[in-house]
Amino acid sequence: MVKPDNRDDYIQSIERGLSVILAFANHHPQLSLSALAEATGLSKPTVRRIVLTLEELGYLRREGRLYSLTPHVLSLGNAYLSSMNLTEVAQPFMEEVTSTTGQTCSMAALDGEDAVYIARVPAGRVMSITLTTGTRLPAYATSMGRVLLAGLADGEIDRYLGQVTLHPLTPRTVTDVDRLREMLFEVREHGWALVDQELEEGVRSFSAPVRDSTNRVVASLSMSCHAANVSMETIHNEYLPVVIKAAAEISTRLGATR
Amino acid sequence: MVKPDNRDDYIQSIERGLSVILAFANHHPQLSLSALAEATGLSKPTVRRIVLTLEELGYLRREGRLYSLTPHVLSLGNAYLSSMNLTEVAQPFMEEVTSTTGQTCSMAALDGEDAVYIARVPAGRVMSITLTTGTRLPAYATSMGRVLLAGLADGEIDRYLGQVTLHPLTPRTVTDVDRLREMLFEVREHGWALVDQELEEGVRSFSAPVRDSTNRVVASLSMSCHAANVSMETIHNEYLPVVIKAAAEISTRLGATR
Repeated sequence: MVKPDNRDDYIQSIERGLSVILAFANHHPQLSLSALAEATGLSKPTVRRIVLTLEELGYLRREGRLYSLTPHVLSLGNAYLSSMNLTEVAQPFMEEVTSTTGQTCSMAALDGEDAVYIARVPAGRVMSITLTTGTRLPAYATSMGRVLLAGLADGEIDRYLGQVTLHPLTPRTVTDVDRLREMLFEVREHGWALVDQELEEGVRSFSAPVRDSTNRVVASLSMSCHAANVSMETIHNEYLPVVIKAAAEISTRLGATR
Repeated sequence: MVKPDNRDDYIQSIERGLSVILAFANHHPQLSLSALAEATGLSKPTVRRIVLTLEELGYLRREGRLYSLTPHVLSLGNAYLSSMNLTEVAQPFMEEVTSTTGQTCSMAALDGEDAVYIARVPAGRVMSITLTTGTRLPAYATSMGRVLLAGLADGEIDRYLGQVTLHPLTPRTVTDVDRLREMLFEVREHGWALVDQELEEGVRSFSAPVRDSTNRVVASLSMSCHAANVSMETIHNEYLPVVIKAAAEISTRLGATR
């Protein structure tokens, strides 16, 4: 995302500073100035000034010639979660879902084309589907993603469908844009989504929308089950209603009126 | 944290950009330009440019005259966690601790004077002590905080003790700086910490250090129990060894050699 230098209202230093933080993601615990320059495409003198600034602000730590992020970076991600109080409000309802069903309950939000896990209450079983918060999954192939997409304005759905590439992750993945659009409008109408082995063979997931005080869909509450262990009948009769009810209760607590 | 404008190597726009993100924390889901100017101490024209930049980068969203953070902000906090792979490595070990003991297992990192929760595997029980990731607790009164403080270099411990205010959170809280220093060196020697009702009446917690490939303490693994339900004997004979073993196993996976 390169911006022209001459746009008066755009502060390039902010983009560059954030790009240095993001360069550490995905298994880069320590980076040198040269490695940071390479990863960000910035000059070494520019990276040096950014790194000194982030170190002074407490986001970076230096050991010899190598830099690493500090836990202070968590306060940025936490600003989003604590701004609307989402995970705090959701936690007891999610724990109730897990204890009622014996299945792991997760919450996700939409970031670009991905559904990002923002909370998770795992069931105390060895076979649980392990996904930590921060994990990203393609929105189109997951029930939580479809609930989030269905919550977008029509124009935003069109923009998403116009640019997304629908990879067949399993033989069942819906890869036809028009079919996916139909499905999103169905999800919007029903108030829930169910995806049967489109992300991963043997895994079914289902989700319901969480709305904030502006009635906008800000998150989705979801559950994943192994198809071999849990029948469609059990999902429809037992688990899905529990997830829908919990999502509605969280929405009410957040101030949603529908 | 105000910096002089004329320091060549300090990029004030980065500080200001991050301060706008942080202004939303703690229950400010939507803020106007005026409210952001007030919260950050910046002028409205400056805030306007920052907000336009963050909106273009996908971190902010505008609705009418109000701005809110987007889930894209989570990618910043996640950069820290995914940089060293910490939560991903720890998750199965933490699930094992919870399933062995029936108690909630948590992981925390040190940010300034606070221990910040970065992962949590709750026990499937109604009475679990509910703390979501991102929650901050004063390091001095918690076992996870003491493990993290004990992992600092001596000079850093001195700096911490020189500036911290030790509030008596319960009648048992250690508020004497010299006594706390002694305790931190004991924690370092023993390789674990136990705190008995110093943070909250009726709650005991114990922790062990998690080290990375440089053998530095990067996190602490901990467990909290209600004093009424779990005896000191059970903690010492059953739970504490499980936590110490899991912390050591996570450290080994992260590349620690001691």
